[in-house]
Amino acid sequence: MEYLEIFSGIWKLRLGAPEEHVPSAQRFVKSPQKNGISELPPVTLPFSPDDITFSVSPRGCLIELPMNANEDVYGLGLQLKSLVQTGKKRILRVNSDPVADTGDSHAPAPLYFSTSGYGVMVDTARYATFYTGGNKRCGNHSEQKKDYDSRSIALNEEDLYSGRKSGLARMMIEIPVAQGVDIYVFGGPKMLDAVRRYVLYSGGGCMPPEWGLGIWYRCCGSADQSEVISVADELREKHIPCDVLGLEPGWQSQTYSCSFKWSEERFPEHEHLIHLLDTMGYKINLWEHAFVHPTSPMHESLKPYSGDFEVWDGLVPDFATEKACKIFGEYHQHNFTSENISSFKLDECDNSDFIISPWSFPECSRFPSGMDGEQMHSLLGMLYQDVIETACRKENIRTYGSARCSHLFAPSMPFVLYSDLYDHKDFIRGVVNCGFSGMLWTPELRHAVSTEDYLRRLQAMVLSPQMLLNIWSMPHPPWYQLDREKNREGIFYSESEREKLLASTRKILKFRQSFIPYLYSAFAIYHFEGIPPFRALAMDYPDCDNMRDIDYAWMAGPDLMVIPFTADTTERTMPLPPGNWYDFYTGQKHSEEIYLNPDIHTLPILVRENCIIPVAEPLTAVTDGVKYELQLRIYGKTPQPVRMFADDGISLDYQKGKFAWGEINQEGIVSQEISFRYEVKDILRFV
Amino acid sequence: MEYLEIFSGIWKLRLGAPEEHVPSAQRFVKSPQKNGISELPPVTLPFSPDDITFSVSPRGCLIELPMNANEDVYGLGLQLKSLVQTGKKRILRVNSDPVADTGDSHAPAPLYFSTSGYGVMVDTARYATFYTGGNKRCGNHSEQKKDYDSRSIALNEEDLYSGRKSGLARMMIEIPVAQGVDIYVFGGPKMLDAVRRYVLYSGGGCMPPEWGLGIWYRCCGSADQSEVISVADELREKHIPCDVLGLEPGWQSQTYSCSFKWSEERFPEHEHLIHLLDTMGYKINLWEHAFVHPTSPMHESLKPYSGDFEVWDGLVPDFATEKACKIFGEYHQHNFTSENISSFKLDECDNSDFIISPWSFPECSRFPSGMDGEQMHSLLGMLYQDVIETACRKENIRTYGSARCSHLFAPSMPFVLYSDLYDHKDFIRGVVNCGFSGMLWTPELRHAVSTEDYLRRLQAMVLSPQMLLNIWSMPHPPWYQLDREKNREGIFYSESEREKLLASTRKILKFRQSFIPYLYSAFAIYHFEGIPPFRALAMDYPDCDNMRDIDYAWMAGPDLMVIPFTADTTERTMPLPPGNWYDFYTGQKHSEEIYLNPDIHTLPILVRENCIIPVAEPLTAVTDGVKYELQLRIYGKTPQPVRMFADDGISLDYQKGKFAWGEINQEGIVSQEISFRYEVKDILRFV
Repeated sequence: MEYLEIFSGIWKLRLGAPEEHVPSAQRFVKSPQKNGISELPPVTLPFSPDDITFSVSPRGCLIELPMNANEDVYGLGLQLKSLVQTGKKRILRVNSDPVADTGDSHAPAPLYFSTSGYGVMVDTARYATFYTGGNKRCGNHSEQKKDYDSRSIALNEEDLYSGRKSGLARMMIEIPVAQGVDIYVFGGPKMLDAVRRYVLYSGGGCMPPEWGLGIWYRCCGSADQSEVISVADELREKHIPCDVLGLEPGWQSQTYSCSFKWSEERFPEHEHLIHLLDTMGYKINLWEHAFVHPTSPMHESLKPYSGDFEVWDGLVPDFATEKACKIFGEYHQHNFTSENISSFKLDECDNSDFIISPWSFPECSRFPSGMDGEQMHSLLGMLYQDVIETACRKENIRTYGSARCSHLFAPSMPFVLYSDLYDHKDFIRGVVNCGFSGMLWTPELRHAVSTEDYLRRLQAMVLSPQMLLNIWSMPHPPWYQLDREKNREGIFYSESEREKLLASTRKILKFRQSFIPYLYSAFAIYHFEGIPPFRALAMDYPDCDNMRDIDYAWMAGPDLMVIPFTADTTERTMPLPPGNWYDFYTGQKHSEEIYLNPDIHTLPILVRENCIIPVAEPLTAVTDGVKYELQLRIYGKTPQPVRMFADDGISLDYQKGKFAWGEINQEGIVSQEISFRYEVKDILRFV
Repeated sequence: MEYLEIFSGIWKLRLGAPEEHVPSAQRFVKSPQKNGISELPPVTLPFSPDDITFSVSPRGCLIELPMNANEDVYGLGLQLKSLVQTGKKRILRVNSDPVADTGDSHAPAPLYFSTSGYGVMVDTARYATFYTGGNKRCGNHSEQKKDYDSRSIALNEEDLYSGRKSGLARMMIEIPVAQGVDIYVFGGPKMLDAVRRYVLYSGGGCMPPEWGLGIWYRCCGSADQSEVISVADELREKHIPCDVLGLEPGWQSQTYSCSFKWSEERFPEHEHLIHLLDTMGYKINLWEHAFVHPTSPMHESLKPYSGDFEVWDGLVPDFATEKACKIFGEYHQHNFTSENISSFKLDECDNSDFIISPWSFPECSRFPSGMDGEQMHSLLGMLYQDVIETACRKENIRTYGSARCSHLFAPSMPFVLYSDLYDHKDFIRGVVNCGFSGMLWTPELRHAVSTEDYLRRLQAMVLSPQMLLNIWSMPHPPWYQLDREKNREGIFYSESEREKLLASTRKILKFRQSFIPYLYSAFAIYHFEGIPPFRALAMDYPDCDNMRDIDYAWMAGPDLMVIPFTADTTERTMPLPPGNWYDFYTGQKHSEEIYLNPDIHTLPILVRENCIIPVAEPLTAVTDGVKYELQLRIYGKTPQPVRMFADDGISLDYQKGKFAWGEINQEGIVSQEISFRYEVKDILRFV
């Protein structure tokens, strides 16, 4: 066994004979951001090949890696049910709606990062099992005599089965079927450095268009053209900011599976609609999934390049074949991206959840590329995103969309994950977690059980990857009625209640809009330097034990800490990372810990000491190349200038070097090179 | 491919090259009940080998079997979350506490039965995946043109993903790793006949000792010798029937893992305790699991015959080796079964549930027999039951115990499954379901959220495989306090409330005791004729569509239908199978459907028309060879005599032919050959 250092601090190790269809062999893999990697500090190997055990069997192969006693690991894809992954058993099955904390995820990734300052990527499309330090081999005892008698008799299941991580256990990874695998080790020295190496190796973080960071609203699934226009009108009339309108399945002539044709019945004048929405400042996002209905124009030509099982009567295109990508991609280019459609929602590219009927293709499916169903389930999300992103790129459209599955190499893909699950704590945990796998996640709003629930859910999106009001199951905007059934039945709140809700909604959405420049620069840092824009506190402070399991707060961009509340919580005392932290609104200074009891209109936000937060005058919708009017909010006595990124915000020209980095200092002076996008109107100081 | 008819109506089909370690190759497999099989009607093959597709790949192997449009399938082991298994995706992973309906079970079994009148057993110890008719291969369309336009746009997830079984789909079974497998097809003509063939092929249903059908009470986990005695005293003083007292982990000097030695501290005079309980009419059940603690006398000798991973510092004996069975079995014989211990609770022989820490051995474990961890997880429950049953058999003890894992060939094992889960509807569904896999299951009582919950849970056990008050987590009997926390803290009900609860408890437990002769005869029918004593209505009435999904009622013995209520239900209207059904208590006659709204003290029971139900004068505890005083309850005008079984009820002599079948007719005349066990004291007629 020998390591190959493929980039500075990134090692590849081949174990046995890897399979043909692995994530790294797919067309979605981007070129690494070499410059970014080379700017990271040099680092030595976290463990030598001698510390690794590898074996093959008819079951597949097994890798064992060292772990130390105080080490915690994170990642394994979008795990909504838990943050810390140490001492557990995880099987990375692709599953749309896992209800339990088993490893099942709609976006699993065989990838973890350690507080000991390294990361490990296992290049497999199999449903690998990770035993993360909870299992001990026989004879692997410390010689110290144990005090067996001190144990008390447990009287509840929690005590009986409570996890006791053993310092002698190792990370074990079992991969089914495969007789070998490549593993990639990302060096630190800190955990965040390892994450950055992974992100940069994957091509750097994605660069969303600026409008993608604005407000998204998905119309009701049954809405026809005139109903969509009436939503568009209402949002503008009521001064509700909105950048993107999403159309649900009803835009198509056939769904489940998809015809990919406009419905003549519901959208007879879709060209008119597209034009109208454009003039009103809306981008359009179209819902679809990859399963191709017999009535689709693509059906015949895709037949030879599809799997051997149908899903909802539709073909499953094999996007691991060039032909299927070409047919599907060109169809999208000709019919949509060249017709001013900038964005797509890629639904159901994950997998059935076992519980309801098995709607997706089985794991034993065969595809023309040679992949089986298990491999395809792992990779379909990434392959599909790539086909769509390519169709956009060919029209010089910088897209930002939604997808329900991702895997390795996700960072460079401009797609945000979402889920049919809806527990708000899980949704918040998703934002905390997603950075560890270089993924993006929206804690979207669909409906709410109360005004408090509604406001808390909106707040949790203000500093998240995507602020999405996904109103697909309600014919009327949420301020008419938050309850799905009542909304459908037309039972509305009173006029005055509606106005109150509308005002609260407007205020929160404007708050999001005001952070676009800050978030956009954070994404540029993600792209060029690999730092995820949304990070667990453990990622920034892996050595603070009390930060390791905080799954209810995250870092947004360089300097903000967000602590969204859920409707069932009124107060919380939380530990703080080292240094002083300022209340975003009042400037009150805190250290070590903070007691929070925000009213239902307030999203708790803290600011790192000596930082400047640029807050923009909110726009109704992002206009291309708009110059933002900023309020500088300055926290602390010796603030550092804030780094800002500027480009056209909409095209792919940044990939050709058409962008600029600059600074804004505490006097409000904007560097020349970025002054075409930013001007300072106001300065507020909190000392 | 060719079928081998190994017994009348039982065919074996070898597909590819099966693995070495399969269920049928294990020592727990009993000789088939040839006489019983030969008495079943002759039957033809349900499908020809040409209807079966088989293929191998690096993934393992894949079998496809025909299904028709109106066919429903049942079984796949103890599935607590669903009854009908059609149109689903099930992975039969061994998992102690599955929270979702995925196929995970602590007692999965690759075995299903069809309403079309046959059963299929797949002889594998792998975690096989069953796609039960929900997935369709491409091109497998009916030629009929579909009316695609009639579909409406769904506005909720249920509609979106609602199962639509296709008449063109087939049963697909994917087995990982294995490159071949034997399947066994059990012919009908009816579904129950196929179940009977399976049970008889597995050695016939188990014959519990009569005391096993009585009342079980598990003492608190922390109880010492004097506390156990005080429970034993209190039960007798309060005239609460009880046959078996269970001791939890505290009886051992070390647990998690097990020393298998009496605790000197808590049970300094255990010989005295055993003797005392015996004189009081109690049998003793000892809790244990298979993991052997370093302080156990067996530890050194078991080392070479154990797996390569520890569980809770303990060895995992490889019961697929003769040596481990011998060491473990003889230890139990010498220390326990020869010392008047008749029963064991075999805990944690299933597998960790992914959610809490991975306490069991990993699937990649290796065992000296050559099994891996996945195979061992599937088979450990059965292997372990066999070791314990053998240790009992060698002392001529007919045992009845508890186990947390089973698999194929379970019918002949005298062990009842249980679970740490506690949803009452799931527990009831477990009784409905268990017969399809020839398993037994107890909807045990552990604690309750209300008096209603308590009474409903007790009622659900009256006509179930085991009536178990598992009070392991509470120091005081439930009538002191139903809430666990309060019970531990010594916060009790008032004297009068306690007396009321005690009276209700006594009444329900006596009700159970009164059914012992009826249930014992039902078990004898299970043993000799293969009819499960507890059956889904669908098993008896597969052709009645409205019986297929009834998961809240079951048939107990030949002629009783039990419809236990849960605390959240006050009324129910249910369809009835063909014929007239009589209210057990009032004799009111019903047909087609029945409206039930039982008060909280009443368990709804219906009786088939023209049947005689023998109800015994309840005993405090079953005494060996006691003569039961029966009340005959006669329903209908032309009642058939009731068949009854008689033997000593305690020893294994029935296996040498020392038993008798007889009848009791409506005049109360008991056949000579069984009159040493039964006499009729009273006759009640409902016409």
